[in-house]
Amino acid sequence: MAIRVPKGYRVAGVHTGVKRDARKQDLALVVSDRNAAAAGVYTQNLVYAAPVALDRERTPSDRIRVVVANSGNANACTGQRGLEDARTMARLAAEAVGAEADQALVLSTGIIGVYLPLDLIAKGIEAAAALLSSDEDALIPAARGMLTTDTVHKLAGRTATIGGREIQITGMAKGAAMMGPNMATMLAVIYTDAPLDKQTVDRSLKAAVQDTFNCISVDGHMSTNDTVLLLANGAAGGPPLQGADLAAFDRVLDEVCVDLARSIPADGEGATHLITLEITGCADRDSALQIAKTVANSPLVKTAITGADPNWGRIVSAAGYANVPFDPAGVTLHVNGFMLYRAGAPVEFDAKVVSDSIRQNRDTLIELDFSEGSGRTRFWTTDLTTEYVRLNADYHT
Amino acid sequence: MAIRVPKGYRVAGVHTGVKRDARKQDLALVVSDRNAAAAGVYTQNLVYAAPVALDRERTPSDRIRVVVANSGNANACTGQRGLEDARTMARLAAEAVGAEADQALVLSTGIIGVYLPLDLIAKGIEAAAALLSSDEDALIPAARGMLTTDTVHKLAGRTATIGGREIQITGMAKGAAMMGPNMATMLAVIYTDAPLDKQTVDRSLKAAVQDTFNCISVDGHMSTNDTVLLLANGAAGGPPLQGADLAAFDRVLDEVCVDLARSIPADGEGATHLITLEITGCADRDSALQIAKTVANSPLVKTAITGADPNWGRIVSAAGYANVPFDPAGVTLHVNGFMLYRAGAPVEFDAKVVSDSIRQNRDTLIELDFSEGSGRTRFWTTDLTTEYVRLNADYHT
Repeated sequence: MAIRVPKGYRVAGVHTGVKRDARKQDLALVVSDRNAAAAGVYTQNLVYAAPVALDRERTPSDRIRVVVANSGNANACTGQRGLEDARTMARLAAEAVGAEADQALVLSTGIIGVYLPLDLIAKGIEAAAALLSSDEDALIPAARGMLTTDTVHKLAGRTATIGGREIQITGMAKGAAMMGPNMATMLAVIYTDAPLDKQTVDRSLKAAVQDTFNCISVDGHMSTNDTVLLLANGAAGGPPLQGADLAAFDRVLDEVCVDLARSIPADGEGATHLITLEITGCADRDSALQIAKTVANSPLVKTAITGADPNWGRIVSAAGYANVPFDPAGVTLHVNGFMLYRAGAPVEFDAKVVSDSIRQNRDTLIELDFSEGSGRTRFWTTDLTTEYVRLNADYHT
Repeated sequence: MAIRVPKGYRVAGVHTGVKRDARKQDLALVVSDRNAAAAGVYTQNLVYAAPVALDRERTPSDRIRVVVANSGNANACTGQRGLEDARTMARLAAEAVGAEADQALVLSTGIIGVYLPLDLIAKGIEAAAALLSSDEDALIPAARGMLTTDTVHKLAGRTATIGGREIQITGMAKGAAMMGPNMATMLAVIYTDAPLDKQTVDRSLKAAVQDTFNCISVDGHMSTNDTVLLLANGAAGGPPLQGADLAAFDRVLDEVCVDLARSIPADGEGATHLITLEITGCADRDSALQIAKTVANSPLVKTAITGADPNWGRIVSAAGYANVPFDPAGVTLHVNGFMLYRAGAPVEFDAKVVSDSIRQNRDTLIELDFSEGSGRTRFWTTDLTTEYVRLNADYHT
């Protein structure tokens, strides 16, 4: 598991002043020295921010050169002027690296309903451009440039030999954390030196996001700015990946996305547990996902895990109101490997042993099996703590 | 607003010992001295408790004589034996008041996955039958008999003159509170001396529940036991209500249901605010309800109100992910009468004044208007506090 800057890329992260704390980076650049194929997956929220509108317009593309990300201001709910600001921010980033204005993509996260401080952003882009580096030491400041109140930076990467070429896939993300009047924005940029055409980048990203970034939640609140980007610049050489080589690439991409996606609820606000849900035996994958989301977003399930309580009733009954038909007599539940419920009824178990297992591990595994078919999904979420409430109720005091 | 025992009914509430605290009632009877038309509305959860199965089988009916409710044990996830226990409990209640075994309905709430202590229930039914009274002093112990960790009993009633007759509608409810490994069960029994045939009772109850009990949430978790019953015994005299008289009855029934339904989130666990959502201007009522539920169940919206934060971004963006199409440029938001957002963009407002208004009032009004049509709904929920998390994470310590 090597986290390096892929060939043909340089990155940087700087402090511009949008965030007050001068020790915190708040702007990042990811630059490709040649045209990269690029695709994006965006928030489904009807209320979406200006950077989402801009990137949607520009992807998929086969000529992206730079991604500029800022934190501290989300450029959301800022109307026509917000759109112009996003366009200006993209143009400044493109100019700083010698690209054309429309070869840049933009990510923003932070407070909403406030215009972007373009003067600070402009200075920041200039400063970052001067620091661009292909050294792996540059990865952390760049990753930090897109954080809000995340407690750790989120990086993942893999090196793989595919079709005789060494391919690097590297990604950075920001998680579901709040800052000022903000939503729990999820951002990720994944960039690779693999040769891929733009249709393939688009297809591979959508497939990877489906089972990773779309399978996490902290509080179920979908942001105005959620964006995942994938760039592929082909600097590893050779013709575009196809067939078995492409399948191998997709598997590695999936691993990088799993690492990044998991890291978001793992760093959930005030969270004391990362909960993995394995939902199996459903009629189809959509049914499994719907049940996973309903269980994951139940405050009663979350608080049960917070309290190390093997509360099968809350878990099974949450599945029961997911609006997915199933036979209640076919439900089996394991928590951390212990069977709590089988064939529609609770079984005897040592509550203290299961409770200790929940209390003593940061990871909790909930396996819920149905007897409807072979549809399945994996989903990650957090518990719900008094600290989460404190952070989100009292953030401005 | 008179809360009296309607003509032809007697009620009682006693302590049986299912709950340990001897000062707490845990069993209630509502008895009609003649056959009553009765209908029920039940949980949509696929995992439903034995009393729900029994009552579903028996309603609508034109010959119900008694409702027996217990708290402390929900008789849920108890399989075939649970069903037999519910049937036995119904039979005991029927026998105690001289009715036939199938003339009783049953409500249970409390811990799940544990068999009903039938010996205690039997003694309790006997004791309650001896105390049955039509005096209004009996209403409170009866209402208390179905509570779990509710902090107050929930009673509502109206006296109305309809078609020259004095009609009384009285109801009791229990709210969304947790006790042991339980879900947030909602129970309500509404009983009237109005003359109504069973089809009308069924139709009137379903219509009333639609805009009241189905428009509340505390944490969005639907229980295995949720039940609302309506009994009408005709003791007020005269032929079954029809036409304008029936419409007048339905309006009064709706008022009683609003009082009871609101009282549930108003007593939500750890809640410091009762939030009323008025959603207007939607394509239809279902769209409005879907948006209302999504906003009401957003932990970010709830915690914003906890923190007296006029956070329009969280509210508008929650609406944006409700899976209901709308024009974001047509959205207007008021909180406690203050306009925060108009035609798709935030407006200037005095944040301190709005914040003070939220902090100083237990009731918060969120009005969200769209420009899609005339669909509307009203919905009640609570904020989310550290106390809620503490209660639900640490209940067993």
